[in-house]
Amino acid sequence: MEKKGLLIVISGPSGAGKSTVCKALTKKNKFWISVSATTRAPRKGEVNGVNYYFLTEEDFKDKIKNNNFLEHAEVYGNYYGTPRSQVLKAIEEGKDVILEIDIQGALMVKEAYPEGVFVFILPPSMEELKKRIINRGSETSESFTTRFNSAYREINYVSKYNYVVINDTVDNAVRNIESIIMAEKCRVDRVKDEILNP
Amino acid sequence: MEKKGLLIVISGPSGAGKSTVCKALTKKNKFWISVSATTRAPRKGEVNGVNYYFLTEEDFKDKIKNNNFLEHAEVYGNYYGTPRSQVLKAIEEGKDVILEIDIQGALMVKEAYPEGVFVFILPPSMEELKKRIINRGSETSESFTTRFNSAYREINYVSKYNYVVINDTVDNAVRNIESIIMAEKCRVDRVKDEILNP
Repeated sequence: MEKKGLLIVISGPSGAGKSTVCKALTKKNKFWISVSATTRAPRKGEVNGVNYYFLTEEDFKDKIKNNNFLEHAEVYGNYYGTPRSQVLKAIEEGKDVILEIDIQGALMVKEAYPEGVFVFILPPSMEELKKRIINRGSETSESFTTRFNSAYREINYVSKYNYVVINDTVDNAVRNIESIIMAEKCRVDRVKDEILNP
Repeated sequence: MEKKGLLIVISGPSGAGKSTVCKALTKKNKFWISVSATTRAPRKGEVNGVNYYFLTEEDFKDKIKNNNFLEHAEVYGNYYGTPRSQVLKAIEEGKDVILEIDIQGALMVKEAYPEGVFVFILPPSMEELKKRIINRGSETSESFTTRFNSAYREINYVSKYNYVVINDTVDNAVRNIESIIMAEKCRVDRVKDEILNP
């Protein structure tokens, strides 16, 4: 029996630093990286099937209807989505797949693939989150408050996840995620059948 | 709120090499090591409260009655047990506690403390288990068969555990257990309260 790969979903509130952590993680380790689909126009140099699958809005909406996405979202009038069949095929072939997505997307993936490993990235403190949001350049105190409150609200979704990783330093966060992946591969639920029916 | 320590139970069939793995693990990492109680006579050089708590059979049986042990067993007419209050106190103080015990004992600990981390150590293959049992010196093929069948039966208890670690090399097994401990400290169930009610 071929051993399945893991689907590792890296998510969390904005300002937690999930992209930085993911970049460092995928640089150090071999993962299968999913190519997203989008309806936005290709930018100069972007290649279909490499950077994105570029779809018309009609195609995209058909694929939503046919349940072809693990998750999808509309951002500023453009659609983005994670193709379901490719990700599931990679997992079946024993490859570990990393998805870096926002909380809304992660919850959709969990619905579709609950056996995934859902990791919530947090800033080291609310103080630090404040700083990071300020550094991103909210001009008015009102827009800061909106952003901060939204990030604060998002933290309540932590209970839908399996793991919390505090992003105090990128190295620590990466080391924790590597341990989580190693540990998940030892979970009885994942290896029991192989052991009892070799 | 003080962060609780973990109770890590290292267990598995005889011949899997759990003592060797535990020795290497506790040499590299700082754990709180539980001192067992026993009714057997102290050997030369053994110190009460250091190597064991030496108890009379009457005392031991009283303690069983009063539910003072996390687990206990009778081996060749002597009693052995893990004192409950000490282990729980260490955990409350944030110390990680390692217990290396047989499957029967591990199941008793799980009953008493289900939030523990239960790790099942396995030899790399049934062939290897055969070799290890033979190397321990079963004289007759009958006693070999008995031992092998017993170890084989014990493997069915794997589903009561959280993790399986294949002891192909001691280094790999230790690295896996270290990852499991690191990952468990990130589990949402363990840190959720701290994050949502800081």
